[in-house]
Amino acid sequence: MVMRTLAASLLSIGVIVTSMQVSAANEPIQPIKPVKPENAELVELGKMLFFDPRLSKSGFISCNSCHNLSMGGTDNIKTSIGHKWQQGPINAPTVLNASMNLAQFWDGRAKDLKEQAGGPIANPGEMASTHDMAVKVIKSIPQYQAQFDKAFGSKEVDIDRVTTAIAAFEETLVTPDSRFDKWLEGDKDALTKEELEGYKLFKSSGCTKCHNGPVVGGNSFEKMGVYKPYKTDNPAVGRMEVTGKEDDRFVFKVPTLRNVELTYPYFHDGGAASLEEAVEIMGKLQVNREFNKEEIANIVAFLKTLTGKQPDFKLPILPPSNNSTPKPQPFE
Amino acid sequence: MVMRTLAASLLSIGVIVTSMQVSAANEPIQPIKPVKPENAELVELGKMLFFDPRLSKSGFISCNSCHNLSMGGTDNIKTSIGHKWQQGPINAPTVLNASMNLAQFWDGRAKDLKEQAGGPIANPGEMASTHDMAVKVIKSIPQYQAQFDKAFGSKEVDIDRVTTAIAAFEETLVTPDSRFDKWLEGDKDALTKEELEGYKLFKSSGCTKCHNGPVVGGNSFEKMGVYKPYKTDNPAVGRMEVTGKEDDRFVFKVPTLRNVELTYPYFHDGGAASLEEAVEIMGKLQVNREFNKEEIANIVAFLKTLTGKQPDFKLPILPPSNNSTPKPQPFE
Repeated sequence: MVMRTLAASLLSIGVIVTSMQVSAANEPIQPIKPVKPENAELVELGKMLFFDPRLSKSGFISCNSCHNLSMGGTDNIKTSIGHKWQQGPINAPTVLNASMNLAQFWDGRAKDLKEQAGGPIANPGEMASTHDMAVKVIKSIPQYQAQFDKAFGSKEVDIDRVTTAIAAFEETLVTPDSRFDKWLEGDKDALTKEELEGYKLFKSSGCTKCHNGPVVGGNSFEKMGVYKPYKTDNPAVGRMEVTGKEDDRFVFKVPTLRNVELTYPYFHDGGAASLEEAVEIMGKLQVNREFNKEEIANIVAFLKTLTGKQPDFKLPILPPSNNSTPKPQPFE
Repeated sequence: MVMRTLAASLLSIGVIVTSMQVSAANEPIQPIKPVKPENAELVELGKMLFFDPRLSKSGFISCNSCHNLSMGGTDNIKTSIGHKWQQGPINAPTVLNASMNLAQFWDGRAKDLKEQAGGPIANPGEMASTHDMAVKVIKSIPQYQAQFDKAFGSKEVDIDRVTTAIAAFEETLVTPDSRFDKWLEGDKDALTKEELEGYKLFKSSGCTKCHNGPVVGGNSFEKMGVYKPYKTDNPAVGRMEVTGKEDDRFVFKVPTLRNVELTYPYFHDGGAASLEEAVEIMGKLQVNREFNKEEIANIVAFLKTLTGKQPDFKLPILPPSNNSTPKPQPFE
């Protein structure tokens, strides 16, 4: 009776509405927050560099080639294509929301986006340039120098500044406003019954033990194949490559599930072509659970609600090379 | 005396100002006019397809890979990179203002942009897909079907519609508002003394015999090497490939000089790395003229005034593949 009266009072002053809302604070997943870059000129410079294939030896491969911002920040192929069509060793992780990962690359060998950005440029199997050559190319272009001046306060170009700018741009690549985030923020109509069922099962089965926080992953290293071994021809050993410890064999950074509908194929080897396949395998290997068809469909429906606002900017126009710019060497 | 009075009268009523302005009608080059697309949904669809690497076998090469709209609609390498890093036979021509060419490809083998668009998709050395496969991929994606519905009035996807849409997008890729066009339209301060000297020499030497009209070329086929033969290792024979006539050996479509500052390297074989080199060679071979250093510098200065407004749109976001979409085959 007292309760009913209290409820009625709360209702009458509108408080009940708030208390009935989903509280993101009580959920293992938190909403993605939009970012406001501090230095817009630095972001603009980073965007140009991200799209500039002259950072590669061939003049053909840019950051955007494998982290294609038209396609969820990935290349949507099992393992990437590098200089002279070399087959990459691992699936290109999405650059979307990557700033919130605890470290970069599947094995976490780069501590942040800036350190990551320098990797592919100088990797002979990827962009196949060198930091010296990349800097020489960019430095030769007066319009780039002017943009460095705006971004850093002086025209000097070095690899530290190049990677700082790319990282600053990448930090803007967050994807707020997914339907799931709307639900987290109190819009209980944002999800269908199936999607909500899927989310509940995702939590109750233990998936959120690793896939949690704002990026639904990205904040821990975990073994691939906890209850059963993961079968793959891919030779990557994961975290062990970094730590040298046998215990870290097949330990990888937990990938973000944000925009997972767009970032197929899945796992470090790109071994799962569909979300259904990925959920089934993860169930068996990681949480010791054989999901039935309906359960898989519900979890997949939930996962598709994690697609947020995609990159929203104009295609950057790159300043031309000139007679002093080193030439690309696509066939050497 | 009569003349002076007339002049004074004209001046007094402001007519003399008009008569002193440059009249584009009297120049061999005309300004580029902006275009207003009739069907915005068709253009939007074409833009998505232009950026979609799923039109290629590998899932890695899109129209934009070799006609990069961040880089003057070209790839800025001598000859393009195709499927499995095959070396292309010829320099990728710019897609900017290409709608105004009398025909497409260097040898004019496609009559328009629509016919052109189908070529690279199915060329084993370029995107290496087939029209059937490209259609199958696009048709499998409901969001694409919805865009076809908006653009064409029904969801049906076929290669005719795919290439119609790409061509409609490409028709919007015109580059008005260059400094030269401003000068043509009466702003006599738009060019420096050197640029104007360069233009005068460009005309008086006979360059405008072929490089004329709104796109400064693109409206005739001409022999490469009129006064002296052009030396190249490139086996392309040009127009002869289409007509079978020996007279058409080394006859190529005259390339546009619009945005030529951005479309290096030059000639059908990409053989000239710099504008200076290109002008020097063209002088000797095509108009029988040995330009001195200052003359070359002036002509190059003029050519750089032909850079117009570059593509200005948001990076398209592509709809994801799904379980029924054929998979890319990058390494097959």
